[in-house]
Amino acid sequence: MKIYGDLKSGNCLKVKWVCDALASPYQWVAVDTMKGDTRTPEFLALNPAGQVPVVVLDDGRPLAQSNAIIRYLARDSDLLPRDPYLAARMDEWLFWEQYSHEPYIAVCRYQMLYLGKPAAARDPAKVERGHAALALMDRHLADSRFLVGPDCSLADVALLAYSRVAPEGGFALDGYPAVRRWIADAERALGVAPLA
Amino acid sequence: MKIYGDLKSGNCLKVKWVCDALASPYQWVAVDTMKGDTRTPEFLALNPAGQVPVVVLDDGRPLAQSNAIIRYLARDSDLLPRDPYLAARMDEWLFWEQYSHEPYIAVCRYQMLYLGKPAAARDPAKVERGHAALALMDRHLADSRFLVGPDCSLADVALLAYSRVAPEGGFALDGYPAVRRWIADAERALGVAPLA
Repeated sequence: MKIYGDLKSGNCLKVKWVCDALASPYQWVAVDTMKGDTRTPEFLALNPAGQVPVVVLDDGRPLAQSNAIIRYLARDSDLLPRDPYLAARMDEWLFWEQYSHEPYIAVCRYQMLYLGKPAAARDPAKVERGHAALALMDRHLADSRFLVGPDCSLADVALLAYSRVAPEGGFALDGYPAVRRWIADAERALGVAPLA
Repeated sequence: MKIYGDLKSGNCLKVKWVCDALASPYQWVAVDTMKGDTRTPEFLALNPAGQVPVVVLDDGRPLAQSNAIIRYLARDSDLLPRDPYLAARMDEWLFWEQYSHEPYIAVCRYQMLYLGKPAAARDPAKVERGHAALALMDRHLADSRFLVGPDCSLADVALLAYSRVAPEGGFALDGYPAVRRWIADAERALGVAPLA
């Protein structure tokens, strides 16, 4: 399998982490979104939405959308709960991540890390909603080791991606002790090296 | 099962349509988001994100996020492809819907239909991205009867919800003939009455 991705992108790292945790072999194809690599006809044929990550299976079939990819790759593993209700609670977090977390925290990080803007230039509405997302997670994680029950699941993979680098988007994690505890636990469970 | 929802909300209608298509019994609990019904302690206990739809299963367990709910309810039905790759392609559309379609088309519709704003007051960036979403769907549907292969799936449920009412958000569908053809096919397949 090939993974087309950018190692600074949390969405791309989700796919790498799952492959590494499951010891699934892959070839990483570095894509530079800032240089237009995702706007070429070849790339758009793989993903008309023009976004990374994209995987191409060994039989040539493509798949896009980070959370759809990790759900497919982990379908027979312990990262996806067997119990249908627990799997649904995991899906709840996956969709919440893409609607209520990524558009605020990852987008602010993008503006600072990729575009070089200062924290003060962030959209105040995005800052407020990003903090609301972290606060919701912190309340939940105060009573729960991982996001869905006692074991690490794809919900933790998906939320770890941008929560751990939230400070790069100007979101200090000092006020979210349960999130900080969970980041360490999730990194350990997934075999992801902590940030320096 | 109880469905807490608002019949004007596409996200809520997704859940109703799936239950109706599968002949699954439910009790509809009308929630008025404009009157603060989703901000009460009782509602936030069901969904800390304070959003509809929420379902409460017969054993009392709650589930939120429209696409997570329909994925759970339809898990053993023909609306969810048995083939893992086709299921993953369906998931790709579900996540794309929440990230690249709903935040533009549904949000513009919300501003016009719920808040009474004129079309001219819409954020130009949201208008542009909403049209980009419809254009992507139109190109795909020119060659495909439904979004994932020959049969109606949850991908069609999820995208039908706000595509059919896009004109209420100021997005005329005249320029998207494949989307218009597909709306009629998806409504027929799901037993959803066309809009007057």
